Amino acid sequence: MTELRTLKVALLGCGNVGAQVARILIDDAENLAPRTGAHLQLTGIAVRNLDTKRDVELPRELFTTDAETLVKDADLVIELMGGIEPARTLILAAIRNGASVVTGNKALLAQDGPTLYEAADKAGVQLSYEAAVAGAIPILRPIRDSLSGDRITRVLGIVNGTTNFILDQMDTTGAQFADALAEAQRLGYAEADPTADVGGLDAAAKAAILASLSFHTRFDLENVHCEGITGVSAADIAAAKDAGFVIKLLAIAEKLTAADGSDGVSVRVHPTLLPREHPLAAVHGAFNAVFVEAENAGELMFYGQGAGGTPTASAVVGDLVSAARRIVLGGPAQVETTNGQVPALPIDAVNTSYYIGLDVADQPGVLAKIAQLFAEHGVSIEIMRQTIHRDADSNVESAELRIVTHRATEAALAATVEAVKGLDVINSVTSVLRVEGV
Amino acid sequence: MTELRTLKVALLGCGNVGAQVARILIDDAENLAPRTGAHLQLTGIAVRNLDTKRDVELPRELFTTDAETLVKDADLVIELMGGIEPARTLILAAIRNGASVVTGNKALLAQDGPTLYEAADKAGVQLSYEAAVAGAIPILRPIRDSLSGDRITRVLGIVNGTTNFILDQMDTTGAQFADALAEAQRLGYAEADPTADVGGLDAAAKAAILASLSFHTRFDLENVHCEGITGVSAADIAAAKDAGFVIKLLAIAEKLTAADGSDGVSVRVHPTLLPREHPLAAVHGAFNAVFVEAENAGELMFYGQGAGGTPTASAVVGDLVSAARRIVLGGPAQVETTNGQVPALPIDAVNTSYYIGLDVADQPGVLAKIAQLFAEHGVSIEIMRQTIHRDADSNVESAELRIVTHRATEAALAATVEAVKGLDVINSVTSVLRVEGV
Repeated sequence: MTELRTLKVALLGCGNVGAQVARILIDDAENLAPRTGAHLQLTGIAVRNLDTKRDVELPRELFTTDAETLVKDADLVIELMGGIEPARTLILAAIRNGASVVTGNKALLAQDGPTLYEAADKAGVQLSYEAAVAGAIPILRPIRDSLSGDRITRVLGIVNGTTNFILDQMDTTGAQFADALAEAQRLGYAEADPTADVGGLDAAAKAAILASLSFHTRFDLENVHCEGITGVSAADIAAAKDAGFVIKLLAIAEKLTAADGSDGVSVRVHPTLLPREHPLAAVHGAFNAVFVEAENAGELMFYGQGAGGTPTASAVVGDLVSAARRIVLGGPAQVETTNGQVPALPIDAVNTSYYIGLDVADQPGVLAKIAQLFAEHGVSIEIMRQTIHRDADSNVESAELRIVTHRATEAALAATVEAVKGLDVINSVTSVLRVEGV
Repeated sequence: MTELRTLKVALLGCGNVGAQVARILIDDAENLAPRTGAHLQLTGIAVRNLDTKRDVELPRELFTTDAETLVKDADLVIELMGGIEPARTLILAAIRNGASVVTGNKALLAQDGPTLYEAADKAGVQLSYEAAVAGAIPILRPIRDSLSGDRITRVLGIVNGTTNFILDQMDTTGAQFADALAEAQRLGYAEADPTADVGGLDAAAKAAILASLSFHTRFDLENVHCEGITGVSAADIAAAKDAGFVIKLLAIAEKLTAADGSDGVSVRVHPTLLPREHPLAAVHGAFNAVFVEAENAGELMFYGQGAGGTPTASAVVGDLVSAARRIVLGGPAQVETTNGQVPALPIDAVNTSYYIGLDVADQPGVLAKIAQLFAEHGVSIEIMRQTIHRDADSNVESAELRIVTHRATEAALAATVEAVKGLDVINSVTSVLRVEGV
């Protein structure tokens, strides 16, 4: 066997994912070398605090607090610190030094991706980030390479395990949001401060990355309309279930023609009703999945673990081996094509079906009044269902009205809901949710 | 914009897939050029008969019967003729001429892949074949590249749409195999001669390709144990359903330790019972899916259309764009690593659970006799269920016994079944099927 060269690998960050990446590089070195055509030598792990307790036992001499020096001497740099700084500065320094970079930092990519892509392009180095979207699931490479001969029309992704776990719990047990969140925190699926997950921001960053690759255009966080799941109630879930739907937090990127005839892409994150037969409806617990629709390929789905140290580490090491092979064998870096230049459309341009829950007075003629109002606003009703409740103590009757519309614009729907609120027979609008996959 | 160079593309074969590839190359040329960095010019389509009616209207002047001359002048050759010859000779000629080759020919790859891979490797050209397994689903690239840092332990694939359609029909409607096959033929999901599909040979070729990439070792058709679905009866399906299982034809490749302690890979195709909650159980109709288990990534699934002209053409053009990019930008071809060199294990080494259906005499003590026999052969029973039928006309009672075993070797199971057949209380062994995913 010919002597293999050695490539120096610097690891920045040693949290859940970083510690597993280090373990794989050390324990599986013999297996990785022939696949890579080089020995991957982990030269150091930059951390903030040397004394932090890690999940994995790793050689103490690898740890350093001096990330800058570590990066200077590396052929490949793995950035798993998260956050914007110092990750951004260190990645740019690595690129300038001619190192290839593997990162899982979706926040940085969604906020300042173009700066990084351009720097990598200019330096002729590889910048890979499969781990940034849907953890272990190979999704970015298939979109970029396997579908390069096709036209993607729509991407629907369950890309945040925390919110999928919470919604799945609510769907299965009937729990309220707060209780399901507490359960997720107890099991380690949600952080103590769950804002980025339940508010949809984590999914929004991934939506921007998916949209950019799918439509060959650079989208950033500002192009993403984002709604989280904090407003989803047990009653919404029950009503959806009753009507044959499940509620999922989806990252959506789709080609649209706006009302003014202009073509563009809508990138958005919001709780969404999906029919129970849809392949994404069967994605339970903290699992992730990305559903892709393309003109020629038709419907595709990619399913797997979207988080967790070991699964995400698999994606990081996969990127590392590919980038290292390229250093060994030569050849150009794989880059995003951005010739699409499709404009991002505002949420008002979206044309979809809606689910609306109303608490109404139990009087004759209410349905007719509401139906009339929808018609006046050009929103066509597909299903209208009324349920009468009688409070056993007070003996007061109340009525619940659930409406699923045909496709309507966000603007028309918003105007309709506003007008409905003004009716004297309406006690309250209990929920307004978008529907996909019908 | 800088002037793009032109790459000449020769297409061999113009069936369902070929015609769609030609259509995409012509209609979508403007879209493909910037992604590729070159104009992809379709220079000709080699067919056996110029007068055959095609699904797609294509310029007559592109057609030729002289494949050899067409290949000589091409930068990229797409082979979609199928079969061994002349496909093999033409691919080797293209490779010798320095052309990159895209093929969907699983039969040729499974039979003589190593000859093609070595020729491509020697000539430094790309040989791609994503379309050969599971049509439009990007599966080979994710296994080869995205999982290059992981260790795959098992692959379970629904890779033949015809048999999945037939089994799904039988499961949904209770139809017998012959009726479901006739329905599949009527709808165009099965060919007039369905042997290669229902006999499992098509799936076996794909199993060999999946196993080779997953375990970094070259496996060919001879390494694949193959059983088709012609023996699966409506009664088997009903019994499986009753016990919470669905029957699927699976292509399986898994790492095993044989009874003698030797490690290896079992590659096989056979009808398999899967629990209804397994993600593969929800793959209906002619859809395909590949379920991959890896040490770090955990469980992954890739789902989509496994056949059909347009979906399969998407995979072919994806390979073409990637191969053309490489010609434009330079760099080495992507090749399979074959450093694994794991031996293929015979079916006798497989250790799995079994479902056994028995038609037995309705006498006291039968269950005890059978249980005793299983114990003597070292096969542990997990579930044993007896159903008594009474024939309304003859008033004769018969009993049906269904057994699910714990994991046992193929050899132990075969010996047990032989011994059971010898019992005087056994009328017949109605089915023996393997169980996965439990």
